[in-house]
Amino acid sequence: MSPSAEPPTNGANHSPDRSNLVPFSSRLKEGRALAQDVWSIYNAANLPADCINLGQGYMNFPPPVWVKEAAGEALNSVAANHYSHPKGRIRLRQALKDHFGPDFGRDLDVESEILVTSGANEGQYSVFVAFLEQGDEVIMFEPFFDQYLPSVTFNGGVPVYVPLHPPKHDGRHSSSEWTIDFDELRRAVTPRTKMIIVNTPHNPVGKVFTRHELEQIAALAEEHNLLVMSDEVYDSLVYDDNEHVRIATLPGMWDRTVTVGSAGKMFAATGWRVGWLIGPASILTPTLAATTRIVFCSNSPLQEASAVGLEQAKKRGFLLQQRDEYAERRAILTAGFDKLGMKYTLPQGSYFVLLDISTVRWPEDYPFPQSVEGRGRDFKACWFIAMEVGVSSIPVSEFYCLEHTSIGESYARFAFCKDVDTLKHAVERLQALKKFLA
Amino acid sequence: MSPSAEPPTNGANHSPDRSNLVPFSSRLKEGRALAQDVWSIYNAANLPADCINLGQGYMNFPPPVWVKEAAGEALNSVAANHYSHPKGRIRLRQALKDHFGPDFGRDLDVESEILVTSGANEGQYSVFVAFLEQGDEVIMFEPFFDQYLPSVTFNGGVPVYVPLHPPKHDGRHSSSEWTIDFDELRRAVTPRTKMIIVNTPHNPVGKVFTRHELEQIAALAEEHNLLVMSDEVYDSLVYDDNEHVRIATLPGMWDRTVTVGSAGKMFAATGWRVGWLIGPASILTPTLAATTRIVFCSNSPLQEASAVGLEQAKKRGFLLQQRDEYAERRAILTAGFDKLGMKYTLPQGSYFVLLDISTVRWPEDYPFPQSVEGRGRDFKACWFIAMEVGVSSIPVSEFYCLEHTSIGESYARFAFCKDVDTLKHAVERLQALKKFLA
Repeated sequence: MSPSAEPPTNGANHSPDRSNLVPFSSRLKEGRALAQDVWSIYNAANLPADCINLGQGYMNFPPPVWVKEAAGEALNSVAANHYSHPKGRIRLRQALKDHFGPDFGRDLDVESEILVTSGANEGQYSVFVAFLEQGDEVIMFEPFFDQYLPSVTFNGGVPVYVPLHPPKHDGRHSSSEWTIDFDELRRAVTPRTKMIIVNTPHNPVGKVFTRHELEQIAALAEEHNLLVMSDEVYDSLVYDDNEHVRIATLPGMWDRTVTVGSAGKMFAATGWRVGWLIGPASILTPTLAATTRIVFCSNSPLQEASAVGLEQAKKRGFLLQQRDEYAERRAILTAGFDKLGMKYTLPQGSYFVLLDISTVRWPEDYPFPQSVEGRGRDFKACWFIAMEVGVSSIPVSEFYCLEHTSIGESYARFAFCKDVDTLKHAVERLQALKKFLA
Repeated sequence: MSPSAEPPTNGANHSPDRSNLVPFSSRLKEGRALAQDVWSIYNAANLPADCINLGQGYMNFPPPVWVKEAAGEALNSVAANHYSHPKGRIRLRQALKDHFGPDFGRDLDVESEILVTSGANEGQYSVFVAFLEQGDEVIMFEPFFDQYLPSVTFNGGVPVYVPLHPPKHDGRHSSSEWTIDFDELRRAVTPRTKMIIVNTPHNPVGKVFTRHELEQIAALAEEHNLLVMSDEVYDSLVYDDNEHVRIATLPGMWDRTVTVGSAGKMFAATGWRVGWLIGPASILTPTLAATTRIVFCSNSPLQEASAVGLEQAKKRGFLLQQRDEYAERRAILTAGFDKLGMKYTLPQGSYFVLLDISTVRWPEDYPFPQSVEGRGRDFKACWFIAMEVGVSSIPVSEFYCLEHTSIGESYARFAFCKDVDTLKHAVERLQALKKFLA
């Protein structure tokens, strides 16, 4: 999940004649597009200066040197400073084919089955542009990556929410215990349903969807002729021998699935804005028409660097080594929570841990800012922890629709895509929470 | 103008069951989004291997070394490899303020009046997302940058075309002689008109709109409460002491104008995908909400490099030197046309020359490909010139609506954003046209 803009308001500070402004589109009035978002409330600027930021999901370490060197080489050429083909640079598409083809069990066609986008985010947006009609319903599992919602509503879609249910017991638990109620999912399908968004490994839960779960989703998609957008940007971060199953590889599913990937997540380069889509030509051809008009193409030098990353990742053993490093980071953070005796969701994948903050207590007269009043209990908990302990996190109720806020408000999301020293320091600070636990 | 994708078709080559595909959005059926576009017809792959490409508008030389070095420095940091604020990196916004503030006669607010986008293209797209309602009309002058049309229709807008009229005389002429019929423009305004797109210096005509022309457009915008999107991506390429007037600086116009700029055009880096919008908070705040969801943010390292470019451009005298270099390139190309005795539009700005190809004759049985049949006469002329002479260009009727094709079909667009040797070589080759002139 990404940091986000400061809250847009229509308050122009240089426009004295407010009555005569050209009105903005009504599409911005839906889908929280203009609401104050969680990223700005818990922005570093609002928190103590030395607060350790485990809120936003970006690394405090750089991309690998050998990938950065490839960016430097690209900058020293002529062509890689100029427009790429809207499909993506051929070297990157070829590298994606070689790297991911075996995962999909297909000889991927670089011309029609791979599409490079300006980050995974813009790839997803382009799919919505290419496929949604006014009133089309898009099913998303809650909690959901916050960009899905406005991206759907901007393009005339109607989000339909199906919650992942956390385990009811009080013990330590795995993200696998967050479950789908398949009757609930089935009831969510209507004649206007166009698409289901799957996100595995899941942000923020860390759940890696099982083959059986994906088979049931696939059956529903087949039955109702639905498109599946499978957001798998954390596919290189799956721990403990969990199997990352791609829904596109289930029988009959290739033709209706577009899989989303990200160089930013894979190579610790969230600011490079290089992502990709893999899927059948029937999905990627309209999506290419969309992305060509939206951004024309993604930036060229960092596409070349990402191509080198993919070409060499396996032979360098980079991805396994990186995964092990993330597993170590996860262990540092969860050991800190264990020491506090707090309950949390141990993630099977991604770089997030959901901490159960329902036992955190604060003084009744604690001075909370206006921005967290009237929101879920987790908004106050995150604020309190950041101010008193100096570690920031993100309240999880933000990633539920209003109706389902109560499911999320027991949790705060902590990102562990930070170096070991930072995490150790955060864990030390978090021990101060002990005196505020019920 | 940019090269574009190969023609999207819905022909999936791995989807045997064509009847059961999830249909793409009807928005792709409008605005030529799925039509075979001019960039793919005149793609290098379809032309002789050694054809000199003066079709597509990107440079065959690199960005300045000192700007590329700044990109390398950014890559060697941690933060500049990760997410930027959706508004853009503060260093770049500050540099934009310092560079452009004087042009606008304003102390630009970096928080609300400057917005960095993923190329000028995505900035424009975001404005359409932020402001268009279903059925809103957008006036554009023909010929128009081909991305405007689908970007408008994808967001529910209806394009309304007002042609620039070429001079009627047969002599050598300036782009200033392409004129607006202001009665025609006035008649194009309806109660549904939301926006006028201005493009100065103009692609492909090279026209630099005069203060008087812009004043008349401004008066109409004020009268009908219209938004003005002023695409000024070629603002650093204005020749012969022509004055580049920004419509945003005319009385009363700041509040209703968003000005579009591009690092790609300014620093010979079309593949960097760094652009910007400058305008009042009332326009940029909704646009920020749109771009945040579309791409989240633009790539970070090349934003840093663009910031350095802007910080140093004036003190290094870079922009004036670059402009003089382009003027030299223009002179080489037009001298070649003069030698041929062909008529053309001498551009006041941008890096395009429109060559009048109405005197070019080809054998009746010349083997044209299917793709140029049934299009304007200029499609055949450009094909013929590329095949027989080895210099590619772009037919200008593509940039008119169907009804107005005849205005554009006398012209081919030649880009001179190429090094001097390439242009000299192209000019030599073009002399072979002599025997095909009427």
